[in-house]
Amino acid sequence: MPQLGLLHGRAWAVLFGQLRRPPGAVCIRAVHSHSQVAEAALATQMKPRQEKSNFIIKTPKGTRDLSPQQMVVREKILDMVVSCFKRHGAKGLDTPAFELKEMLTEKYGEDSGLIYDLKDQGGELLSLRYDLTVPFARYLAMNKVKKMKRYHVGKVWRRESPTIVQGRYREFCQCDFDIAGQFDPMIPDAECLKIMCEILSGLQLGDFLIKVNDRRILDGIFAICGVPESKFHAICSSVDKLDKMSWKDVRHEMVAKKGLAAEVADRIGDYVQCHGGVSLVKQMFQDPRLSQNKQALEGLGDLKLLFEYLTLFGIAEKISFDLSLARGLDYYTGVIYEAVLLQTPAHAEEEPLNTFGEKIRTTETQVFVATPQNNFLQERLKLIAELWDAGIKAELMYKNNPKLLTQLHYCENMGIPLVVIIGEQELKEGVIKLRSVASREEVAITRENLVAEIQKRLSES
Amino acid sequence: MPQLGLLHGRAWAVLFGQLRRPPGAVCIRAVHSHSQVAEAALATQMKPRQEKSNFIIKTPKGTRDLSPQQMVVREKILDMVVSCFKRHGAKGLDTPAFELKEMLTEKYGEDSGLIYDLKDQGGELLSLRYDLTVPFARYLAMNKVKKMKRYHVGKVWRRESPTIVQGRYREFCQCDFDIAGQFDPMIPDAECLKIMCEILSGLQLGDFLIKVNDRRILDGIFAICGVPESKFHAICSSVDKLDKMSWKDVRHEMVAKKGLAAEVADRIGDYVQCHGGVSLVKQMFQDPRLSQNKQALEGLGDLKLLFEYLTLFGIAEKISFDLSLARGLDYYTGVIYEAVLLQTPAHAEEEPLNTFGEKIRTTETQVFVATPQNNFLQERLKLIAELWDAGIKAELMYKNNPKLLTQLHYCENMGIPLVVIIGEQELKEGVIKLRSVASREEVAITRENLVAEIQKRLSES
Repeated sequence: MPQLGLLHGRAWAVLFGQLRRPPGAVCIRAVHSHSQVAEAALATQMKPRQEKSNFIIKTPKGTRDLSPQQMVVREKILDMVVSCFKRHGAKGLDTPAFELKEMLTEKYGEDSGLIYDLKDQGGELLSLRYDLTVPFARYLAMNKVKKMKRYHVGKVWRRESPTIVQGRYREFCQCDFDIAGQFDPMIPDAECLKIMCEILSGLQLGDFLIKVNDRRILDGIFAICGVPESKFHAICSSVDKLDKMSWKDVRHEMVAKKGLAAEVADRIGDYVQCHGGVSLVKQMFQDPRLSQNKQALEGLGDLKLLFEYLTLFGIAEKISFDLSLARGLDYYTGVIYEAVLLQTPAHAEEEPLNTFGEKIRTTETQVFVATPQNNFLQERLKLIAELWDAGIKAELMYKNNPKLLTQLHYCENMGIPLVVIIGEQELKEGVIKLRSVASREEVAITRENLVAEIQKRLSES
Repeated sequence: MPQLGLLHGRAWAVLFGQLRRPPGAVCIRAVHSHSQVAEAALATQMKPRQEKSNFIIKTPKGTRDLSPQQMVVREKILDMVVSCFKRHGAKGLDTPAFELKEMLTEKYGEDSGLIYDLKDQGGELLSLRYDLTVPFARYLAMNKVKKMKRYHVGKVWRRESPTIVQGRYREFCQCDFDIAGQFDPMIPDAECLKIMCEILSGLQLGDFLIKVNDRRILDGIFAICGVPESKFHAICSSVDKLDKMSWKDVRHEMVAKKGLAAEVADRIGDYVQCHGGVSLVKQMFQDPRLSQNKQALEGLGDLKLLFEYLTLFGIAEKISFDLSLARGLDYYTGVIYEAVLLQTPAHAEEEPLNTFGEKIRTTETQVFVATPQNNFLQERLKLIAELWDAGIKAELMYKNNPKLLTQLHYCENMGIPLVVIIGEQELKEGVIKLRSVASREEVAITRENLVAEIQKRLSES
């Protein structure tokens, strides 16, 4: 049986005590069994509903379940992301799914209307978190923490309107890595970009590029082009749409919807359609008007430094200085970045996986305990307990008298590599038959040697 | 750099495509940097709020953040729990945090008032999930799945009133393992109990006992004692309180609040104060009145079978047939179980961890990159990128010119075992100094051999 080796028993008990609900009863009360859950499902499915006869069983709009197959993928992705965050020395943190409503207001600009509020059921007014950044800021402020490098993987909720058609879900998972504190400029930012590169390379999604910009440069551009300061936010959010809309359409929005003078929009257009490497940073330094703007100069200086560090990290060629990058939220004030894939994986959405002849295993079962005979449940139960207690991942059929063929088919379908078979013959001889599902070879092994033999085979494969 | 070895690139891209938000941009856009988050925190902390001058920075009532130290513990616990679930062949599943309100109503009996509803912001009426069982039942019904063994670890939300005082949070994590489907009786239930034993033993919390009962036996007792059928649920929920209240108080509730005749309550008391092993099951079979009740007989028959299987699993002595166990929720109809610790870990809540002279590391950093000299940032950045790319967990100070002592103190405080030091001397000689934080020993190592030497030392420790 697995043990927690790291801490001695007493310390462990204290730590655990801090996490569990105190009085007596342990938190694991919800290990259910078949009949009752099946009945609950049946009740949901079958119950005649007089008043609500057209009730449809579905997930809420814009949300979805993750199937076991999708869960395997998500687990691999999150493992890779979290191990990268840990490689960079980040601590873990978790915050509640909802915050005081007041905490979230005025943090997201135009997007504030997309926050899910909880119903006023007496007590505090609450909202579901919209990102992991504001809760982190709240944590820092509440605990008077001045300096912290933390990661946080968790769900956030946004009442997006177009939702799934455009691939936006109302519930989705964010993976945040933040370095909070006062440091010398651009060293933490360079590390954040290094992290993005490591994760995107590790995920093997094909070529990517990370766009970089600075809100101060954008503000500088708006200022020298003649945007009134009251319109900076609105114009910024128009610029942010350049990854989805043409400049023509964005210009139209600025002029027609946001009341910007056409010539001001055109001047903005000359800038925000530029992108390039560190040479573009240098070029902007030479720009006669931009170089007169204090804010823009600060931003450009930081970007120059950033590119120097990125070169030392060996990732400068993955980074593009892109003047159209604006990012939607109000809380960005300095350097901003966003990764894009350079080619969309072909037909990623539709193609079924077995096109590749590969099967995703949704369980990790290593050994199946089977019998060819009736009335062998007791022997199977004793045997499988031995395997579990040795840490071997094992399953059996929940039937008194399953058919051998059914048992073997299950192993093939589920990709279980080994079967142990016990029947009258084996019981008489004090052996167990060990069968390889792939080769169908069977060997008889004495009961005492079974666990060791299984572990040997598993470690070899 | 770590790679995902299991699937070839194309299949991986397809899988990933099914998970990510489709058009172009990748989901990892939220890798933030220091200055902006710090500012957001500062804004939250400092912003003068005219109208809301008494605004307090806190988490909502009944919720809490998990600090890095608590996260380390939670991660260990969940790793152990999930690996046990996988050892028993369960598939993963995830469902949204909220469900259609209608889906949750009528599922929880008396507790329904504790469901968090979302505000009606147009569209569907939604509620936060109250457990993971009803969403699982919804998943089965929606996808017409008849048979599934799945685990689900996730948060649930309940508007409990007494909240933290009694150790109940309004947001807490549930770890569910369910076997849904039609099988021969008690085989899946026996496995669920085996799982509880494996997890509780693995967590090393001290001695525990798992109470077992059957709702049909309880209903049978109520029937033969003379409880009107309309009061079964109410009386059942009174019985459920016997783990927190004395029989005297529970009896009072039954009689005074729920209108039960005193002699009926007394008859119930004779039964529900019994507990024991399989011998109590056999004794109840002999009970002249209970053995006349069809429902109770079915429950007793199943418990007898269950104990037989538990004996084969080697865990019968951990299980107690406890007639007072009722469990709160309406969806239980058959066998029910609940684990209790036999002694509360002493002072688990108050005792600070360092009583044991043990320090919980909140990061996994293996190597710190330090310098004794000014103007060595560039060399440090080049060096640390080499370590990261070799998969080594490494940190440095985000300062142009940190003091050596500050850097070494940081390593001692954070429990980082190794330091690599680069200065003028080392640069000239083409070496790096490798220092053990514990022994303070330093050796010079050529740059080419550094990664290999670090990996050797880490694998030895």
